[in-house]
Amino acid sequence: MEQRVIDTLRKVFELNGFIGIETRAVEPGSSLLKKGETSKEIYLLSRLQEVGQENDTPVEDRLGLHFDLTVPLSRYVVEHANDLAFPFKRWQIQKVWRGERPQEGRFREFVQADIDVIGNGELPDHYEVELPLVMVSALEALREFGLPKATVHANNRKLSEGFYRGLGLNDIEGVLREIDKLDKIGADEVAKLLVGECGASEAQAAACLELANLTAANGAELAERFDALCAAHGIATDSDAYVLARQGLDTLAMIVDEAARIRPGSVIADLKIARGLDYYTGSVYETFLDGAASLGSICSGGRYDNLASQGNRKYPGVGLSIGLSRLVSYMLHTAGAKASRISPAAVLVAVWNEEDRAASNEIAGRLRARGIATDVAPTAAKLGKQIKYADKLGIPYVWFPADRSDPEAVDEVKNIVTGDQEPADAKSWEPDTLVARQTVEIQGVEAA
Amino acid sequence: MEQRVIDTLRKVFELNGFIGIETRAVEPGSSLLKKGETSKEIYLLSRLQEVGQENDTPVEDRLGLHFDLTVPLSRYVVEHANDLAFPFKRWQIQKVWRGERPQEGRFREFVQADIDVIGNGELPDHYEVELPLVMVSALEALREFGLPKATVHANNRKLSEGFYRGLGLNDIEGVLREIDKLDKIGADEVAKLLVGECGASEAQAAACLELANLTAANGAELAERFDALCAAHGIATDSDAYVLARQGLDTLAMIVDEAARIRPGSVIADLKIARGLDYYTGSVYETFLDGAASLGSICSGGRYDNLASQGNRKYPGVGLSIGLSRLVSYMLHTAGAKASRISPAAVLVAVWNEEDRAASNEIAGRLRARGIATDVAPTAAKLGKQIKYADKLGIPYVWFPADRSDPEAVDEVKNIVTGDQEPADAKSWEPDTLVARQTVEIQGVEAA
Repeated sequence: MEQRVIDTLRKVFELNGFIGIETRAVEPGSSLLKKGETSKEIYLLSRLQEVGQENDTPVEDRLGLHFDLTVPLSRYVVEHANDLAFPFKRWQIQKVWRGERPQEGRFREFVQADIDVIGNGELPDHYEVELPLVMVSALEALREFGLPKATVHANNRKLSEGFYRGLGLNDIEGVLREIDKLDKIGADEVAKLLVGECGASEAQAAACLELANLTAANGAELAERFDALCAAHGIATDSDAYVLARQGLDTLAMIVDEAARIRPGSVIADLKIARGLDYYTGSVYETFLDGAASLGSICSGGRYDNLASQGNRKYPGVGLSIGLSRLVSYMLHTAGAKASRISPAAVLVAVWNEEDRAASNEIAGRLRARGIATDVAPTAAKLGKQIKYADKLGIPYVWFPADRSDPEAVDEVKNIVTGDQEPADAKSWEPDTLVARQTVEIQGVEAA
Repeated sequence: MEQRVIDTLRKVFELNGFIGIETRAVEPGSSLLKKGETSKEIYLLSRLQEVGQENDTPVEDRLGLHFDLTVPLSRYVVEHANDLAFPFKRWQIQKVWRGERPQEGRFREFVQADIDVIGNGELPDHYEVELPLVMVSALEALREFGLPKATVHANNRKLSEGFYRGLGLNDIEGVLREIDKLDKIGADEVAKLLVGECGASEAQAAACLELANLTAANGAELAERFDALCAAHGIATDSDAYVLARQGLDTLAMIVDEAARIRPGSVIADLKIARGLDYYTGSVYETFLDGAASLGSICSGGRYDNLASQGNRKYPGVGLSIGLSRLVSYMLHTAGAKASRISPAAVLVAVWNEEDRAASNEIAGRLRARGIATDVAPTAAKLGKQIKYADKLGIPYVWFPADRSDPEAVDEVKNIVTGDQEPADAKSWEPDTLVARQTVEIQGVEAA
C-alpha cells in the first residue's frame, strides 16, 4: 500500500521534471540544531562501544537522525552547488525521525514526501503557484486509493506581517503562533492569547481575527476586501507596513488566480494560515482533505528565502511536504483503502508430488518470463490445501500441470475466485481479470 | 541509479511471489543484542532532552537502529505469526546502520536487499536451491547496468561440522572462523591458526584445508570425492560425524545438480565457504562477481533453523542478502555504470516571455498527460540560455511554442543532441529515441 502510494507520487513528481535525491539519514548535530523550534525532537546517536562516554562530545559534534527533509536539502544544495543546474527542482521521499514521546496517532518514525525548488540567488515567483499545483496533481493521483479531494489553503507571511505592523503590533511571530491555533481552540481563546501573550489591545486582537476570516473568490476581490480592512483600521496605503502587506497580497492574488485558471478549486486564499516554522518568508500553504478536518493539514510548506546560504550566496526556495505515514494511515483506517499483506503473485502452480516439482518450476519460469508473477506450491500437499494456501495469500489463479502419464493431457488453470477452470498454455495464457493481471505490489508497513 | 537498481530487484522478487515488507528502523536494544557478533556495531538512540541521562537506562531497554534486516524479520514473524501464510516468502530492501568507525569503502549507512522464506515448524529443502536461484535472476537482471556475471558458491555447515568432528576436532566455530580467512591470508597462515587457535594437529589442519579445496563438477562427483577424503582420514561411514556430514552433503549435491539443470553455471559447490555468523545451521552461500574477487561476496546467506522461535514454535528459514550500497558503488566506479544527477524530463518547454508562460505550461500539461516527463524553462531568458539549461540537466528535447502573433505558426521541437528540429503537436508527438522516451529515473544517492 505505502509502496504503491510512493510509486504514484514519484511518477507525478518526475512527470513534472523534479529530480529524485536521497540523503543519508544521519546528519551532524550542528546541522540539525540550526533550525530552531523542532530541534528538541532530535534523536542523537551513540555507538554501543561509547556508552557512558556520550557526553564527552558536545551535542553539535555528535550525530543525529534527520527530523525532516529540508535540513538535509539545505546542506545538500550548499555542498553540491557547483554541480547543480539552478533552479534545482528535487523530490525526496524518505523516512524521518522525531525523538518525541510517542502519542496516539503520531509516529516516531515516518515517511515524508517533499518537493522543493531552489534558486541560486533569486527564484521567480511563478514557482509559488506551480509547486502547490504539482502537489495537487500528486494528491489527485492518490484518489484511486480512496483519498478525498484535497484543497490547498494559501496565505503569505508578508501580508500578515504588514497588516499586524500596520495595526501597531510588533511581536509578529507571537501573533502568528496564536493565529495558528484558531482551528483548534476557536476565536475567543485566540483573542485572549493575543491580548495576554502578544501585547495586543482588544481592538487589535479583533482586527487580527478579522484578517484571518477574510475570504475572497479571486485575486481582485481579495485585494478589494483587504484594502477595505486596512482603511477600516487606519492603515495608510503609503505606509511601509501596507507596502509589505501588499507585496504579499499581490503574490497571493497571483497564486489564487493562476491556480483557478489551471485547476479550478484547487487552491484558495485562507488568511488564517500561519505555519509554525519561522523560516518561511512569503507564501505559506496548508492542505486539507474534504471531510477530514480533524486530520489537519496533510501537506504544508511555503517560500523561504534564507534557509540555505553560503557566504554571500543565498539559495531561496519554495517547497511542500506531505506527511505520508499519517496520510497512508488515514487512507487505510478511514478512507477505506485496502491493505493486504498478500502475495504479489497472480498464479500459484500446484505440485502433484515432489518428483514433479521441476515441471511446476518450469511452468512458473515461463509465466515469469512473460511478466506474470508466479509462486509454486511449497509442498505437494493435498490439492485442497494448496488452493487454501493460494487463497490465504490472495493469489487468484491455481495452475494444474498436465498429468505426465497421459500424453493427451494439457495444463489447466483455475480462477479460485470464480471457480472457472480451463485448459491453458504457459507460453500464451494471460490472466483475464484486471486485478489479477497487475502485479499487486503491496507492502506490509509497520507503524513505529 | 540506486533507485533503478532497487526497482529491478523488486520486480524480480515479486515475479517470484515474494511479499514486500518494511519494518521500522528502530528496534529495542533487547532484540538487537540477541544476535551476538555484530552487536558491537549498534547505534543507540537518545532523545535530545535526555542528553546526560542516557545511562540511567540499561542498553537492553534503549532503542537502536537495526544493523541488518534479519533481526527485524525474526521479530516481525513472531509478532505476525497468526496472520501470515507459511511458508512466508518476503523481500525487504531498506537502509541499515552500523555504528562502526567509518573506513574507506565501508558505509555506516547502507541499503540491503534481502529475500527470506520462513517456515512454521518445518521448511522443505527445495527452498535451499530456489532462493539462491532467485538471487541469481536478480543479479542477472542487473547486468543491464554493467554488472558482471555472478556465481553463487554454496557449502553446508553440517558437511563441514561432520567432517571436522570426524577428524576429532571440537572447536567447530573456531575452525570455521579460520577457514573463512582462506581467501584473505592464504592456506599457510590458516593452517597455523588452526593449530595455534583451534587445537588442531598439523595433520588435522591439513585435512581441513583439503576439504576446503575439494571441488566437483556435480553432486555425484562431490559425494565420491568426499567419501574418498573421509576414507583417507579414517572417518567411518557409520560414525555420527559422517552421518551429519552426509546430510549436509546430500543437500549440497541436490542444490548443485538442480541449479545446473535450471541455470547452468549459476551455483557451484565451494567447500571453503564458512560465513562468519553462527546462526546458520545448513546451507551457506556467498556470491562472487567475475573479475571482482577483491570485492568479496556481494550476496550471502544460508539456512538457519533457530533464528526465530516462540515457545515451542520454531521458524526455520533460508535467506540471502545483497549489500546493495557496496554493489552500486562498485557498478558506478568500476563496472562503468553511469550516474547522472539529471532531470527525469524528456522535454523542456521554452518560454518566449513571462506573459506567455501559461501557453508553455499548457503544452507541458499535454505532454505530461501522455506520460512524457516535461519541464518548463525557469525564466524567459535568451533562447541559448534555455537550451543550455536543458543541456546541463540532460534533457534531450527543447520545445518551442508557436509564435502566437502568427496564425500559421506551429510548435516546433528540437533534439539538442542531434540538432534536428521539426514541427510538433503536443497532443501526438513522441520522443523518437529510446533514451528520451523512457523517463530517466535517477537518484543522487549520498554515500554516508
